[in-house]
Amino acid sequence: MTRTAAIIGGGVIGGGWAARFLLNGWNVNLYDPDPQAARKINEVLTNARYALPMLYDKALPPEGTLIHMKTIAEAVVNADWIQESVPERLNIKHKVFAEIEAHAPTRTVIGSSTSGFKPSQLNEGMKTPNRLMVTHPFNPVYLLPLIEVVPAPETSETAIKSAIETLTSLGLHPLRVRKEIDAHIADRFLEAVWREALWLVKDGVASTEEIDNAIRYGFGLRWAQMGLFETYRVAGGEAGMKHFIEQFGPCLKWPWTKLMDVPELTDELVDRITEQSDAQSGKHTIRELERMRDENLIGILRALKARDAGAGALLKHHEASLTPAPASKNSAGPITVISRTVPIDWTDYNGHMNESRYGQVFSDAADEMMIRIGADQAYIAKGSSFFTVEINIKFLIECRAAQKFTVQSRFTQAAEKKIRLIHEMLAEDGRVLATGDQLLLHVSLETRRTSPMPADMLAKASALRGEN
Amino acid sequence: MTRTAAIIGGGVIGGGWAARFLLNGWNVNLYDPDPQAARKINEVLTNARYALPMLYDKALPPEGTLIHMKTIAEAVVNADWIQESVPERLNIKHKVFAEIEAHAPTRTVIGSSTSGFKPSQLNEGMKTPNRLMVTHPFNPVYLLPLIEVVPAPETSETAIKSAIETLTSLGLHPLRVRKEIDAHIADRFLEAVWREALWLVKDGVASTEEIDNAIRYGFGLRWAQMGLFETYRVAGGEAGMKHFIEQFGPCLKWPWTKLMDVPELTDELVDRITEQSDAQSGKHTIRELERMRDENLIGILRALKARDAGAGALLKHHEASLTPAPASKNSAGPITVISRTVPIDWTDYNGHMNESRYGQVFSDAADEMMIRIGADQAYIAKGSSFFTVEINIKFLIECRAAQKFTVQSRFTQAAEKKIRLIHEMLAEDGRVLATGDQLLLHVSLETRRTSPMPADMLAKASALRGEN
Repeated sequence: MTRTAAIIGGGVIGGGWAARFLLNGWNVNLYDPDPQAARKINEVLTNARYALPMLYDKALPPEGTLIHMKTIAEAVVNADWIQESVPERLNIKHKVFAEIEAHAPTRTVIGSSTSGFKPSQLNEGMKTPNRLMVTHPFNPVYLLPLIEVVPAPETSETAIKSAIETLTSLGLHPLRVRKEIDAHIADRFLEAVWREALWLVKDGVASTEEIDNAIRYGFGLRWAQMGLFETYRVAGGEAGMKHFIEQFGPCLKWPWTKLMDVPELTDELVDRITEQSDAQSGKHTIRELERMRDENLIGILRALKARDAGAGALLKHHEASLTPAPASKNSAGPITVISRTVPIDWTDYNGHMNESRYGQVFSDAADEMMIRIGADQAYIAKGSSFFTVEINIKFLIECRAAQKFTVQSRFTQAAEKKIRLIHEMLAEDGRVLATGDQLLLHVSLETRRTSPMPADMLAKASALRGEN
Repeated sequence: MTRTAAIIGGGVIGGGWAARFLLNGWNVNLYDPDPQAARKINEVLTNARYALPMLYDKALPPEGTLIHMKTIAEAVVNADWIQESVPERLNIKHKVFAEIEAHAPTRTVIGSSTSGFKPSQLNEGMKTPNRLMVTHPFNPVYLLPLIEVVPAPETSETAIKSAIETLTSLGLHPLRVRKEIDAHIADRFLEAVWREALWLVKDGVASTEEIDNAIRYGFGLRWAQMGLFETYRVAGGEAGMKHFIEQFGPCLKWPWTKLMDVPELTDELVDRITEQSDAQSGKHTIRELERMRDENLIGILRALKARDAGAGALLKHHEASLTPAPASKNSAGPITVISRTVPIDWTDYNGHMNESRYGQVFSDAADEMMIRIGADQAYIAKGSSFFTVEINIKFLIECRAAQKFTVQSRFTQAAEKKIRLIHEMLAEDGRVLATGDQLLLHVSLETRRTSPMPADMLAKASALRGEN
């Protein structure tokens, strides 16, 4: 049954949560008294609908239904998850939790997006503090997988387990924080870097753009895939982590940093940062910057997925869980083996899907057809596979980024050592976008030479071809 | 004429510098008294030779020659660049600079890789302080583009300009730091994060792996493409940067951070970090981790290159400067249009170049052939292009990551609205790896329909086909 999330507070963060749930097939009840709430959430949803499906090489579940609710009571009454993202004021949050408790099922987890409060501050005065915890996301919530899960001492293990399960099913990475602490984990780092950056701007050592470049051309690239400790472990080399820290240790006492001190946010400093930021990024609207950011993140995440590394490994894991039950058709004729959208990294200077990506689509389709005759990953791991020796592709109608399509494939030949496939790539309205006629040979991965496929595999391919 | 870099100190950093220069066509004179120097630098070079060429979709210049020198004098006597990467002790560095000054041409820039010293400390006692500056790289030096260029008050503008030009030509991003300051810019951030991380581990709030995940699943992804300020600008939304800072400002006074205090690096803390890091990453050797890191960075950098964003924009710019003078052959017959290696992100689960990437290779080859008949980016920008309508690819010999290959292409047909190309993909030994037979139609990018190509374009294609 479709589950329902209640999203209390629909700003950038609440909207990002709503998008995560909706695009993963949940229904969403949104409560936000802001008269602009519908417009704001639609902006986030538009971004998310464009971006999130492009991360995956499979279709996400059908989108859930978004309902705007007039009261917290209506929003939470049937909720399987409740996410609070209201302004960072404790008295407001306490009022919201009281209202939630009065109407929500007692089994439902309540997550708070707070970055500033500890869960033991949030749960003061609650009747059911056992199901409240911090679930702190990172912007853009529909693309970044990190969620800091911070239980209070009163939070039940049952609620924590249930939360971790739900968050994981949304493609998120719940990082359970061992002890509640101000600002959790990641924001402590951000805070430390932010202070140091303010000093550098204030002292005229660097502009905002120079600081951004110092990050994104250097350690930012490292941190997108390994973190701090693993990076230093590699830097330390064969001498090991212990040697590295001992060597690095004394530097901590060098008079390097101004972090002991908090820079005064004078009007002058605020103006300087604002002016420098305008000079750096003012040529783009926020909407343009959001789109650029999202497309960059998609590119990075997809690159990491291909390497099974960092956040890409999470994505790959989530994608595997998405497998729609394959239409287990055993009769001959075309089988729909692919259903997805065109990701941004497949497009080229002509503004359309690059011709080489059609080959990729048909290669993916062939993989699916191979699975249907038993040539799956387990079979390949045992030392045989199919290699394509020839393909003929006809490009009929051009495709743009985010376009939805399916691929229908069928066997047209099946012999001792070879199979032949015809693929049709189809738009939602049934128009044929491209066709592929592909010849594959069965090979031994050891000798890299052709070899006969097993009899049962040939039988399956023949049956799907319509032979008996 | 081939230029020569003198690399003084050949550890991980010096070796990275040597690799950057060699792979960009410079000769390198290496001085390092360590008896293990040759082995160490070969390890770095092996990594770099595998990784750096894969960043580009064009061939790098032919690799320069590495010579191990017995003295600093021999290393620097004919050097066009001198890079010092000796241990971080001021008396050692002063001795090295004195030796360099005694033998190097006075025009040659001396760059120091120091992270700990200011240039005005380094140049104490120098006769020619005008050509010394900090040029601080980031590991792995052969992949990360950031170089912090920090001049001393005595450094001449001529030397700074020359340094920036040289570094840029190596695909690096010289970030000129406006004022000398302890730890330059980026290491101040790293230092701040490192201290905070040590506290979190010491207080048992998070393990090394949890901290790494908090980074690489969240803000690390943001920082690989935008930096701190641009990210916050986007987060601030339409209200603007000023509003964002003013809102964020007060948080600086919250008691969030332990950064005011330096954690004592007790044996117990060192052991805890070492044990946690072993549990997290100990299943991989340092060599494996280096390879994983490099392949991840290649994937990220190539993804960003496709988006023309962050460090990928730098890479794209450098790639454009690499264009080898095209064999401006006007006679008919095959033209070598591509010369490069297979990047890691083109390989698949069969351990070889995925079939779809052959389509990409031939698509790139077609672009080059289009340029030769005048259908270049400027022509496309004016509203016409060629679209592929059919391609037949024969896969003859499989290719692995880092394999070198060329593509030879020729026109087999040229008519009012269409051209036909035959491509041959060749290994270094001349074996044919694959062939492509590609039909393209001339289209208007406005109507997205076929249109006749200009007469001069048709004439060029016909001439290259061997018609007159």
